[in-house]
Amino acid sequence: MDISNKVFIESAFQPEIFGDEMYDLICRLYPICRSITGDGVRETLSIIHEMVPIEIHEIKTGTRVFDWTVPKEWNIQDAYIKDGSGRRVVDFKESNLHVVSYSTPVKEKMPLAELKKHLHTIPDMPECIPYRTSYYQSDWGFCLKHKDLLALNDEEYEVSIDADLKDGYMTYGEFFKQGELADEVVFFSHCCHPSMCNDNLSGLAVIALVARFLQSFSLRYSYRFLFAPATIGSITWLAQNENNVHHIKHGLVASNLGDAGCSTYKKSRRGDAEIDKAFQHILKNSGKPFDIQAFQPYGYDERQFCSPGFNLPFGRLTRSPNGSYPEYHTSADNLDFVKPEHLFDSFYKIVSVINILENNKTYQNQSPKCEPQLGKRGLYRQKGGLQNAGHFELALLWILNLSDGQNSLLDIAERSKLDFNVIFSGAQALLDCGLLAEATS
Amino acid sequence: MDISNKVFIESAFQPEIFGDEMYDLICRLYPICRSITGDGVRETLSIIHEMVPIEIHEIKTGTRVFDWTVPKEWNIQDAYIKDGSGRRVVDFKESNLHVVSYSTPVKEKMPLAELKKHLHTIPDMPECIPYRTSYYQSDWGFCLKHKDLLALNDEEYEVSIDADLKDGYMTYGEFFKQGELADEVVFFSHCCHPSMCNDNLSGLAVIALVARFLQSFSLRYSYRFLFAPATIGSITWLAQNENNVHHIKHGLVASNLGDAGCSTYKKSRRGDAEIDKAFQHILKNSGKPFDIQAFQPYGYDERQFCSPGFNLPFGRLTRSPNGSYPEYHTSADNLDFVKPEHLFDSFYKIVSVINILENNKTYQNQSPKCEPQLGKRGLYRQKGGLQNAGHFELALLWILNLSDGQNSLLDIAERSKLDFNVIFSGAQALLDCGLLAEATS
Amino acid sequence: MDISNKVFIESAFQPEIFGDEMYDLICRLYPICRSITGDGVRETLSIIHEMVPIEIHEIKTGTRVFDWTVPKEWNIQDAYIKDGSGRRVVDFKESNLHVVSYSTPVKEKMPLAELKKHLHTIPDMPECIPYRTSYYQSDWGFCLKHKDLLALNDEEYEVSIDADLKDGYMTYGEFFKQGELADEVVFFSHCCHPSMCNDNLSGLAVIALVARFLQSFSLRYSYRFLFAPATIGSITWLAQNENNVHHIKHGLVASNLGDAGCSTYKKSRRGDAEIDKAFQHILKNSGKPFDIQAFQPYGYDERQFCSPGFNLPFGRLTRSPNGSYPEYHTSADNLDFVKPEHLFDSFYKIVSVINILENNKTYQNQSPKCEPQLGKRGLYRQKGGLQNAGHFELALLWILNLSDGQNSLLDIAERSKLDFNVIFSGAQALLDCGLLAEATS
Repeated sequence: MDISNKVFIESAFQPEIFGDEMYDLICRLYPICRSITGDGVRETLSIIHEMVPIEIHEIKTGTRVFDWTVPKEWNIQDAYIKDGSGRRVVDFKESNLHVVSYSTPVKEKMPLAELKKHLHTIPDMPECIPYRTSYYQSDWGFCLKHKDLLALNDEEYEVSIDADLKDGYMTYGEFFKQGELADEVVFFSHCCHPSMCNDNLSGLAVIALVARFLQSFSLRYSYRFLFAPATIGSITWLAQNENNVHHIKHGLVASNLGDAGCSTYKKSRRGDAEIDKAFQHILKNSGKPFDIQAFQPYGYDERQFCSPGFNLPFGRLTRSPNGSYPEYHTSADNLDFVKPEHLFDSFYKIVSVINILENNKTYQNQSPKCEPQLGKRGLYRQKGGLQNAGHFELALLWILNLSDGQNSLLDIAERSKLDFNVIFSGAQALLDCGLLAEATS
Repeated sequence: MDISNKVFIESAFQPEIFGDEMYDLICRLYPICRSITGDGVRETLSIIHEMVPIEIHEIKTGTRVFDWTVPKEWNIQDAYIKDGSGRRVVDFKESNLHVVSYSTPVKEKMPLAELKKHLHTIPDMPECIPYRTSYYQSDWGFCLKHKDLLALNDEEYEVSIDADLKDGYMTYGEFFKQGELADEVVFFSHCCHPSMCNDNLSGLAVIALVARFLQSFSLRYSYRFLFAPATIGSITWLAQNENNVHHIKHGLVASNLGDAGCSTYKKSRRGDAEIDKAFQHILKNSGKPFDIQAFQPYGYDERQFCSPGFNLPFGRLTRSPNGSYPEYHTSADNLDFVKPEHLFDSFYKIVSVINILENNKTYQNQSPKCEPQLGKRGLYRQKGGLQNAGHFELALLWILNLSDGQNSLLDIAERSKLDFNVIFSGAQALLDCGLLAEATS
Repeated sequence: MDISNKVFIESAFQPEIFGDEMYDLICRLYPICRSITGDGVRETLSIIHEMVPIEIHEIKTGTRVFDWTVPKEWNIQDAYIKDGSGRRVVDFKESNLHVVSYSTPVKEKMPLAELKKHLHTIPDMPECIPYRTSYYQSDWGFCLKHKDLLALNDEEYEVSIDADLKDGYMTYGEFFKQGELADEVVFFSHCCHPSMCNDNLSGLAVIALVARFLQSFSLRYSYRFLFAPATIGSITWLAQNENNVHHIKHGLVASNLGDAGCSTYKKSRRGDAEIDKAFQHILKNSGKPFDIQAFQPYGYDERQFCSPGFNLPFGRLTRSPNGSYPEYHTSADNLDFVKPEHLFDSFYKIVSVINILENNKTYQNQSPKCEPQLGKRGLYRQKGGLQNAGHFELALLWILNLSDGQNSLLDIAERSKLDFNVIFSGAQALLDCGLLAEATS
């Protein structure tokens, strides 16, 4: 990083402007009907492209990606259930959640009993439409409010799903920013969910803004941002980039970043990766509630990046995790469920972690026998006898004591219980007067 | 194991039949006067032989076994203390605990004051006869209820112990069941205590039943069951089998298995042996109170198996441990103190651990890059969007994620907090479709 | 050690005699005006010399010691502030804390506003004089009670500091006791503070007595005692003895050993040095409150011994640590603040640790297969069947079980939760009968 970390961090702290920008992006993306393939994804990516110049990849139906195959492309024009009087009692145009994603086309009249086999509701949440998919099993279905299901009384209904499922492409977006090093930090956000805000328009909006933010800076690491469908998207990317994953030094799956829950970091499979330590440091020092979770192989796309054949250092940041809140995967995950201030908080924590990753070097004390005389360099109070040293003086002592080539600045921050930025400033002062030099590893 | 672990485990679950069988065996063995040598041990082993075809070993008095020597054989016919009127105030025929084990013969009249030097009571438990021994120091003595001691008022008493202590043999029983592997699991239960039920007719009964139970199955490991006197028995066996102990992969000392206390597992000296992990898994998942104790060199025959020159992976299962309950080593450790249901519970936990040991293999995910597509193999729900995965699906994900050749199924069960049997079933399903293969170590 | 540890420990237990001796020494040293150089240090060391034949070192001003330079020598004859009427309102002769240590000479009249820039008080403790220094920045100043500052009303004051700051020497004392081995245990106590008792006349008194106490014994380790100014003293010693520090096997910085606070041990930078374990054992087994602190690079001279270029196994013993009590570095740290019984308690803990270091060897069980028969050697009760073993018998079992060449006696004491002295006695008994031999490392 060719500018001080203070400028970097301070430039990121624009809660209202950035919070609103992300929320506005979510508002634009909300009505679009996305799935793991199709024009909804393309439209979504083209809107993100206005913010960051992402490259669009189109992967052909039938492409083998490890144990999987890129599926047919699905697009939908309209869908409804009409009652005996011809009234649309379920209407895709009102909410794209009404149709089970990847439903095969149908157009027929059928008795209510028959129809019910294709209907999904949440009895405990009668006002909400659930979100359901059937990507890999040929089927069709409707999702509706449970109270609307109870109101169905006619003997026969007309159902229509005007959709195509045919050979085409799976689409994803990628933005790469070259850094000083070939070593990469990768961010992944899934772009396949239809009209739901927290899962996962929030993830898209936050990492799109992170990508745009980083563009203003010359950075040590290279950065890669992936906007792709869940599961098949990450698997496809890994299959196509298998020979280059050794460049990935840190990775993050970003999702559910706009709700009111506390920030929740799920550790990588390794459990002690640098990104795990960096997020734990930032969350512990945030002054806000947080949760750290051990890795488990259920969740989002960290499942693929952390599969044993890759075992990449990918963590995951959410606020409320998948499956942990009632609005999850329902129509209640709407524009009211996410807030600009939560989006900003998530954004700022990610930028703070990037700041650590960029600056977390390991140094060697150049005067390791006894303490160097800091006072004569203007780095230590000249009057003795006071009760305690200040934070900055403590930081200097910790850095000098632990900089034996084995401890990074983040290690020193954790051990000293001082904030990374205090340790970083101390290291700069010691570098400036030659008491510290970068460790040769 | 050539049958599924489900059949094995389900065959073991016969609480009433097995509980009663063990209790009945205890009832038959209870009256016999055992010691570390002599006909009481032989009679005990011959009754166990009706259940399991154990081999009887007779080791000559004077045989050197490491730092010890097999002692003379002790047998007793009768013993009493008669008061001035000729009445037996202490009578061996009423309880064989009345005579200090290995008492030398005596027949004389003596004043009460002199006699008292040879009497043992428990003042705090005036209704109970204590259990005392003097194997390696030539002496004689009587144990009696404290209230009976207080009632002794005559000036002179006649004491008689009609016992032999002469060259002969030390006897122990051994049952070996050949498995697919030469690797062995060894069970040890001491058979030297006279009329006390928990310590240790309970141990004898439980492992005799385990031995009989295993006979119906073809197993991976070989199994060895030792019914031998405490200390000198295990030392003798180790001395005579010193060159074969490298076959022992897992071992258990079994004792005090019929009382109402919670199951208590004492870890091996190694502390992280596979049997330590297996017992901890079973006890934690039992839904009942339990206790796990660190190794300490005081206790039963694990002292010998875990001596530093052997350091074998021997744990110990008891309910209430030695010395931890008032009835311990007294006449109150009687047929009322042990119960069929506790015996069965102990038996079933041991069989559950055997089930783990038999099936706890380490596998290699054959499709380690990204998750394999479980849905197309019928192993994963086809409808997406639900709140959470089921236990079986979670098990599959955990097994695939951790089967990198480093984690056994038990490790995976512990890490995932899922029951071993769920993990085992998941592994079978993945083996069946070729996604898993045994790791070559 | 050629005498049993029992004699050593018992000789040390003379609470009243030793407590009073240390307190009396503090009373004699209290009035002397010490600084990091000068005649106050010389006088202090000459009084200590009456107790222990320390060698006095004089290091020339200007000597380079690593990154530092030995400063000019400072001596002070008199100092005061006189008010308009000529009355001494602040008088060095009343308390040597009144003058900022290393103040440059001054003699002039000045207005109150100007004078105030040179005055130091503690507003929260208006009755106490603070302790301040200005060793490495040329300046002068007075310390006074805040209530006296508030009483200054005259327009002009006369200030006088009759001090010299010129080329000379820095003085420190050293006592070395040769042991059987060249391996050393080093004690360091700073001798540079003026009239304050806990910090650090208490440290000087305690380690002077430890030094004198050890003189009566032939010991395994060599012992070195350093009485030197803080920071520059330890740095100078390390610079001048850089090539011999590999002999240092254990080290302790001793300070603040007379107050009523609990014993507080600060671990070495290594965190698991033998002295760390020994102090933890002694404090845990003391039956009194105690505190164990992780290493941090702020504090006393452990900062130098534990700098990364040396990383010596130096811990630190205090009662209340630096900066943790209001009397710290004020005139309230006086003869009432320290007590003979606290001094003795500190002394006795240090001697107890020395006892461990002297006797903490690693042995090899000579009969490692099964337990040896302790009964035939008179080391184990001959009657069996009792509820529990005694402490001594348990110690024997633990020593035999863990003496595989990997565990020292202290390790065994910690693991068994038995006192080191019980383990030590057990080891002597086992050595006597040939069951144990010193491990060859």
